[in-house]
Amino acid sequence: MEIETFVAQSEGEWNSMRSGHSLAFKQFEEIVSNIKVKLLSNNDQNVRDLLHKSDYSNSEPLSPFEIKWAGESDWNNEKDNEDLKGSSLLIPIPSTNNTGVILRSSGYAEKIQAVSSYYFLSDGTIVLSTKYEKTFAEERIWFVNENLRCRSSVIKSINRKAILQTSFASELRRLKV
Amino acid sequence: MEIETFVAQSEGEWNSMRSGHSLAFKQFEEIVSNIKVKLLSNNDQNVRDLLHKSDYSNSEPLSPFEIKWAGESDWNNEKDNEDLKGSSLLIPIPSTNNTGVILRSSGYAEKIQAVSSYYFLSDGTIVLSTKYEKTFAEERIWFVNENLRCRSSVIKSINRKAILQTSFASELRRLKV
Repeated sequence: MEIETFVAQSEGEWNSMRSGHSLAFKQFEEIVSNIKVKLLSNNDQNVRDLLHKSDYSNSEPLSPFEIKWAGESDWNNEKDNEDLKGSSLLIPIPSTNNTGVILRSSGYAEKIQAVSSYYFLSDGTIVLSTKYEKTFAEERIWFVNENLRCRSSVIKSINRKAILQTSFASELRRLKV
Repeated sequence: MEIETFVAQSEGEWNSMRSGHSLAFKQFEEIVSNIKVKLLSNNDQNVRDLLHKSDYSNSEPLSPFEIKWAGESDWNNEKDNEDLKGSSLLIPIPSTNNTGVILRSSGYAEKIQAVSSYYFLSDGTIVLSTKYEKTFAEERIWFVNENLRCRSSVIKSINRKAILQTSFASELRRLKV
């Protein structure tokens, strides 16, 4: 399963540089953050709880994991940077070798529970699509080598017409598991 | 040929927001620029000249094109921004439907003549690899829709070990041809 390899490669601690582009206003945002990715067991209580209350309660998850992050933005003061701390539980449920869904306890574009669909391109890039309440997000994540992960996102309004923001993160490995 | 479609989609004028990430120093660069992409004929004199002095003089090009750009960086003063103006002639020579090489009169990572190899991923993303004198560059370009083009790059030292810089551009269409 490609998702299993992807999660295994992602495990560890990463230093992230992320740039946000607000296209309508030509504004750049710069965010530096630390990201921790940790593999969890299918029997982890939080995994079981999130799965149980989802539409996928009878499905078999593969490589559930937790992401924790703490960031600093050049747009924010110290207090606002508290908003750039968070964590999310992610539960992949493959449907084929290279497609499936990922349940998220907290989303990327909006901080609500979400279900992303994913597929892998031929070079191992994962493409995630998520419909939120007001927005639609497409994320792409690929490994340049085992110590550099790139992540791009495009956030559109829910009708998918207006592009609200794009972003790009360069994530350098600090620590392996 | 996928390259023909790619060049046709790229033709026109674009407003670009580009972020550079210097990973070793955690430095961000912000560049705003205008980009013009123009399809040329195989019989264009500059196309014929560049092809003739290359190793591909007996090959048949497809959709040769010119890129002109003018940018402004937050790192530069007015004089230095002159260096962010330029143009390059690009001549695709397909070997299969979705692979080939592109001759460049001026490269991306270094302003010298270069030959990039390319291939297309299943979703239409083009991946370009270019070996320069001191560096090796991988670029990816994909269309989110007909009016938004994303472009990422990773520049490595020639031994491909040290990652020198990554960058990401969001390019919004200003004008169709």
